[in-house]
Amino acid sequence: MPTILGQNQYGKAGVRVVRVIREGAVHHIKDLTVSVTLAGEFDEAHYSGSNSGLLPTDTTKNTVYAFAKERGIASAEEFGIELARHFVTSQPAVHRAGIRIEEHGWSRVENSPGDGGTGHSFVRTGRETRVSRIGYDGERWQVVSGLDGLTVLNSTDSEFSGYVKDRYTTLQEAYDRILATDVRARWRYSWASDATRAPDWDTSYGQARANLLRAFAETYSLSLQQTLYRMGASVIEGDGELDEIRLSLPNNHHFLVDLAPFGLTNDHEVYLAADRPHGLIEATVLRDGAPSLIPPGPGAV
Amino acid sequence: MPTILGQNQYGKAGVRVVRVIREGAVHHIKDLTVSVTLAGEFDEAHYSGSNSGLLPTDTTKNTVYAFAKERGIASAEEFGIELARHFVTSQPAVHRAGIRIEEHGWSRVENSPGDGGTGHSFVRTGRETRVSRIGYDGERWQVVSGLDGLTVLNSTDSEFSGYVKDRYTTLQEAYDRILATDVRARWRYSWASDATRAPDWDTSYGQARANLLRAFAETYSLSLQQTLYRMGASVIEGDGELDEIRLSLPNNHHFLVDLAPFGLTNDHEVYLAADRPHGLIEATVLRDGAPSLIPPGPGAV
Amino acid sequence: MPTILGQNQYGKAGVRVVRVIREGAVHHIKDLTVSVTLAGEFDEAHYSGSNSGLLPTDTTKNTVYAFAKERGIASAEEFGIELARHFVTSQPAVHRAGIRIEEHGWSRVENSPGDGGTGHSFVRTGRETRVSRIGYDGERWQVVSGLDGLTVLNSTDSEFSGYVKDRYTTLQEAYDRILATDVRARWRYSWASDATRAPDWDTSYGQARANLLRAFAETYSLSLQQTLYRMGASVIEGDGELDEIRLSLPNNHHFLVDLAPFGLTNDHEVYLAADRPHGLIEATVLRDGAPSLIPPGPGAV
Amino acid sequence: MPTILGQNQYGKAGVRVVRVIREGAVHHIKDLTVSVTLAGEFDEAHYSGSNSGLLPTDTTKNTVYAFAKERGIASAEEFGIELARHFVTSQPAVHRAGIRIEEHGWSRVENSPGDGGTGHSFVRTGRETRVSRIGYDGERWQVVSGLDGLTVLNSTDSEFSGYVKDRYTTLQEAYDRILATDVRARWRYSWASDATRAPDWDTSYGQARANLLRAFAETYSLSLQQTLYRMGASVIEGDGELDEIRLSLPNNHHFLVDLAPFGLTNDHEVYLAADRPHGLIEATVLRDGAPSLIPPGPGAV
Repeated sequence: MPTILGQNQYGKAGVRVVRVIREGAVHHIKDLTVSVTLAGEFDEAHYSGSNSGLLPTDTTKNTVYAFAKERGIASAEEFGIELARHFVTSQPAVHRAGIRIEEHGWSRVENSPGDGGTGHSFVRTGRETRVSRIGYDGERWQVVSGLDGLTVLNSTDSEFSGYVKDRYTTLQEAYDRILATDVRARWRYSWASDATRAPDWDTSYGQARANLLRAFAETYSLSLQQTLYRMGASVIEGDGELDEIRLSLPNNHHFLVDLAPFGLTNDHEVYLAADRPHGLIEATVLRDGAPSLIPPGPGAV
Repeated sequence: MPTILGQNQYGKAGVRVVRVIREGAVHHIKDLTVSVTLAGEFDEAHYSGSNSGLLPTDTTKNTVYAFAKERGIASAEEFGIELARHFVTSQPAVHRAGIRIEEHGWSRVENSPGDGGTGHSFVRTGRETRVSRIGYDGERWQVVSGLDGLTVLNSTDSEFSGYVKDRYTTLQEAYDRILATDVRARWRYSWASDATRAPDWDTSYGQARANLLRAFAETYSLSLQQTLYRMGASVIEGDGELDEIRLSLPNNHHFLVDLAPFGLTNDHEVYLAADRPHGLIEATVLRDGAPSLIPPGPGAV
Repeated sequence: MPTILGQNQYGKAGVRVVRVIREGAVHHIKDLTVSVTLAGEFDEAHYSGSNSGLLPTDTTKNTVYAFAKERGIASAEEFGIELARHFVTSQPAVHRAGIRIEEHGWSRVENSPGDGGTGHSFVRTGRETRVSRIGYDGERWQVVSGLDGLTVLNSTDSEFSGYVKDRYTTLQEAYDRILATDVRARWRYSWASDATRAPDWDTSYGQARANLLRAFAETYSLSLQQTLYRMGASVIEGDGELDEIRLSLPNNHHFLVDLAPFGLTNDHEVYLAADRPHGLIEATVLRDGAPSLIPPGPGAV
Repeated sequence: MPTILGQNQYGKAGVRVVRVIREGAVHHIKDLTVSVTLAGEFDEAHYSGSNSGLLPTDTTKNTVYAFAKERGIASAEEFGIELARHFVTSQPAVHRAGIRIEEHGWSRVENSPGDGGTGHSFVRTGRETRVSRIGYDGERWQVVSGLDGLTVLNSTDSEFSGYVKDRYTTLQEAYDRILATDVRARWRYSWASDATRAPDWDTSYGQARANLLRAFAETYSLSLQQTLYRMGASVIEGDGELDEIRLSLPNNHHFLVDLAPFGLTNDHEVYLAADRPHGLIEATVLRDGAPSLIPPGPGAV
C-alpha cells in the first residue's frame, strides 16, 4: 500500500450553549461556543469506513448540552475538563480529547428589574473573546487559555529606529508614533494532574488580562517585539501557575497623513489607520526552565 | 435614446481617520470611518465620460484628513456637518452631500501613565458601533444617528402565544423564553436649519442608548414587536429633539434543548443559541405628527 | 399619545433550503437562502403585544420547506412568487409579502458517476450570488432580480482626467489605469400582473450577466460612471422585459507602485490592490419613460 | 531572570500585488496576497528593543513589489522561492524565511476585445483560493501548497451507520444522506534542494485539485473519514513529487426536513443546510515511509 494514515482526529465544532442559573429574580448566564475533538483508534474509519468504536459527533454535541445541565458551567476550563475526562474515560477507542471553548461575555444591564438592582437583563460586553483549550490523554492535562481581539493603542511612547537598511528600504525612522495591536494571547498552566489542585481559572484570567494591558501601557516601546516580550513576561511573572505564553501581535499601522500639500502641518495629530498589509510579531515567552509546548501555529517559519 | 440616467451619486467609502489631541501627557483620541457621497449635475460623466465638474473621490478623502486637522473632530455629527457644508458650498456641481460616519469607541486603560491616572493608552470598548449620516442640500440638514450591534438578552419575562395557526404551524406557544437581539437603531433629529441651535450630539447619543437598554430590560414582552415599539417610544419620549426612530431587531432564537432522551429535565436552564434562520422585526416609531423620512431600506415590503 | 407606529414589517431571514431532484442516477439540485417579510395589520402586536392575526415567523420557515416539496423550485423567482402569493392570499392580516432569495450556484463534477457522464456530485461555482426579491400586494407583482459580487478587472482602456482640482486635490491624472469593481446589480421586470405571461427568469438572468460582462469589457472608460451607464444600458437594451437597473460599483483602486527608489521603472506592470478606502459609484438606468422604483438604498444622498 | 524568549518570528502579512504582463493587446495577470515571515537572531529586539540586524517589515513589503517587477511571477511557488532565498541569503540575522501566498484566480472575459478573442478583461473565477507556503533555512526548502474553500456535495452514495451508541446518542443511522464539505488541503513536495529539479507547480496544482474532486465524487462513502482518506491517497498516488497531504473537512450537515406535520413525505428531496455546529474531520495521509512534517495545527488533540 503506497499511502498510510498519519495524525488524525475528528469532532464537532461550534456547539452554541447558553446556561441560565436562576437565583430568584436574579439570573446568571454563561454563553459558550464549544468544540470537541477526539483522537485514538480510528484507522479503520479511514481505511474501510468501519465506524465501530466511533462515537458520532452528534453525540458529542448532545453531551455538551447534557453536561451543561448535569454538571453546570463553573468556568470554561472546568466545563472543558469535565467533558474531556468523560470522552477519554468512557470510550475505549478515544485516547485523547481536546475541548476548545470560546466564552462570550455578558454584563448585567444596570438598573434592570430584580433584587438589588440586578435581574435578568444582559448586554454583551467587551470586544475580546476569552478562549480555552483543554487536552487530556487519560493521565495528564494540558490547559491553554487566553484571549483574542483585545485591541489596544498607545498614542505616544513608541519609536522605531536603528534597523537595517538595504536596497529596498524606504521607511523613515520614527521617534514618536502610534503603536496599536489586536492582542492574541495563549497561556499554558503548569497544572497537569488530578493529584494537585487546579488553578482558580477566573481569577487567573482577570490577572493575565490586566497584566497584558498594564505592560502594554507602561512600556516605552523601541519595537513591538520589546512590548510583546514585556507583555508576556508580565503575565508569567504575575501568576506562578503559568509556565508559557504565546503572543501574536499584528502591528496595526497608523500612518501620519502628509498634510503639507494643503499648507497644513501635522504634529502627530492626524493618522490614517491602515488595514493591510500589517506587521505581524509572534513569540513565546517561557518561565526559565519550562518546556515550550504551545505550538507556534502552522504559519511559523 | 432608449435608456436614461436616474438617481445617481458617487463618493469615497471607508476613509479611516484617527485624531489625537494632546493635553500634556493626557491624550484624547477620535477614531472614525468616514464615507462621502455627492450628488448633483453629473449626467455627462455617465453619458459621455466628461469629468468636468466632478471632484475626484480621492480629493474627498484628502478633505477628510485636512478637516480633521483644521476643524478638529468635536463629535461625529459636527465633523460630518463641516464636511457636508464644504462640498455643497464649494463645488457648483454638487447639489447634495451625504456623510456617513462610524465611530469606534476607545476607553482609557486604567492606571496607565500620565497625569492623574490618565494618559496615552487606550483599549477598544463596547461591541456596538455608533453611526451617523448627515445630509445637506445647501439649505436643510438631515441628521440620522444611531448604533449597530448592541446585543442584549433577557433570560425571562418574554412570552409568545396567541398567534395564528395554519396548516404549516408547528411552533409551540412559549410562556417563558429567552429574548435576545442585536439592536440596529437609526434616529432622526428635527434640527434642520443653521438658524436654530444644533443638538448636543454626544449627550443625545448617551440618552438614546440608555433608553434602548432600559426599555428592553423593563418591558415584559408578549412579542418582539411590542418590545421594539417600547424601545423606540422611549427614545423619542426621552429626547425632544428626536422625531423618528427606525429599529431593526433580529430575533436571535434560543431554543430550549430537549434533554429528555438523556433522562434529564430542562427547566429553562440549557439553551441552544441558533444562528440562522432568525426572525427579523423592523418598524419605525414616530413622534405624533412628524413625517417618516428614514427609509425602511431596500428589504422593506 | 406622543408616539405612533410607522412603517413596519416582520419575517424570517436566512432559511437555508436544498432541493434534490432525482432522474435515475442523475440528480439536480437547487440551493437557496430564503427570507420572508410580511406587512399588514400588525399595529396591535406593537402597541399591546396582541399576536392575533400574526403568523409566526417559524411558520413562514416551515412553509418554505413544505413548498420546496409541494411546488418544487423551478427558479428562484417562481418559488418566490408561489410563496408571496400564499402568504397574501391565505392570511387576512397580511397585505403585502416580500420574498428575498439568494441562489447558490453548483456545477456538476465532470466525469462523475452516473448516466452519460453526469451524476450526483457537485462543486460550488462562481463567486457571484444570484439574488431576487419578489413583492406582492394581492394585485400587482414587483420582481427585482440581480447579482452580488461579480468581480471584474480591465488591465487597460481606462482613463481618469479632466476633473475639478481644488485646494485638496493631489490626484494625478491617469491615462492608462486598471479599472476593477465588484458588480452589485438589481434589475426590475415590467411584469406585474398574473394576466400577462411572466418572463423566462433563467434566460433573462444569463443575458443580463453576459451583457454586464460584455459592456464592462468593451467600454473604453473615461470614468467608472461612464462604464456603469453602459453596463446598465446594455442590460435594459438587451431585454425588453426589463425597465430599470440599479448598479452599485466600488472602484477597487489598483495603485501603480513607485519602484523608482529601487532603481526600477514601473511601466504599468506592478500594482498595489487597495482595500479601503474605495470609490463607490451608484446609479439607476431606466428605460425611457419607465418609473424609478428600485430604492437607491439608505446610503443615497 | 525568571522568563526567557522562546520561538519567535516577525514579518508582514497581507501584501496585495497584481502583476500585469502585456503581449500586445493580450494581457496576463497574477493576483497574489503575500506574507513574509522571518526568524533568526532577534533576541535583543525582544529583550532590549535593539533593532540592529532587524530588517523592517516595510522593507519586506517593498521587496515583494520590487521582485514582482525584477523577477516576475511565474507561479506563486517560484515567486515565494525567490523571496525566501533573498531574505535568508542577504540578511545575516535571518536564519529562516517563510513566504505564504494566496493566489486569486481570474478568467479572461470571453469575447472581449483583443487578438484572437482574448484581451485585457478579466472576471474572478472559482470559489477556492490556491495557497502556498515556502520555507527556507539557507540549505533546504519546504514547499507546502494547497487550497481553501473548495465546496463539494454528493446528493447520494453516502451512509453513516454502525457507530457507537452511548447514553447521549440520539442520532439515527443514515443509509442515504447528503455529504458536503469545504475542502481545505495542504500537500507537501519532497523537493528540498536546489540540486534537484523543482516540480512544475501549476501542473501539480491542477492534478491535485482534479484528484480531490474525482475521489470525492467516486467514493461510495461509509464515513467522511473514509472519503477523506481516499481523497488524500488519490493526490499522493497521482503525483510522485508529493509525500504528504493534510486534509481538514467540515461535515456540512444537510438535515432531511420532517414534512410529516404537513401531511407530506420527504423522500430525500428537501434538506435544511445547517451552519453550526458542524462535524470536523482532519487527517494526514502519507506516502509510506515519508515523514509527517505538515503541522496538524493548534487545534490538534
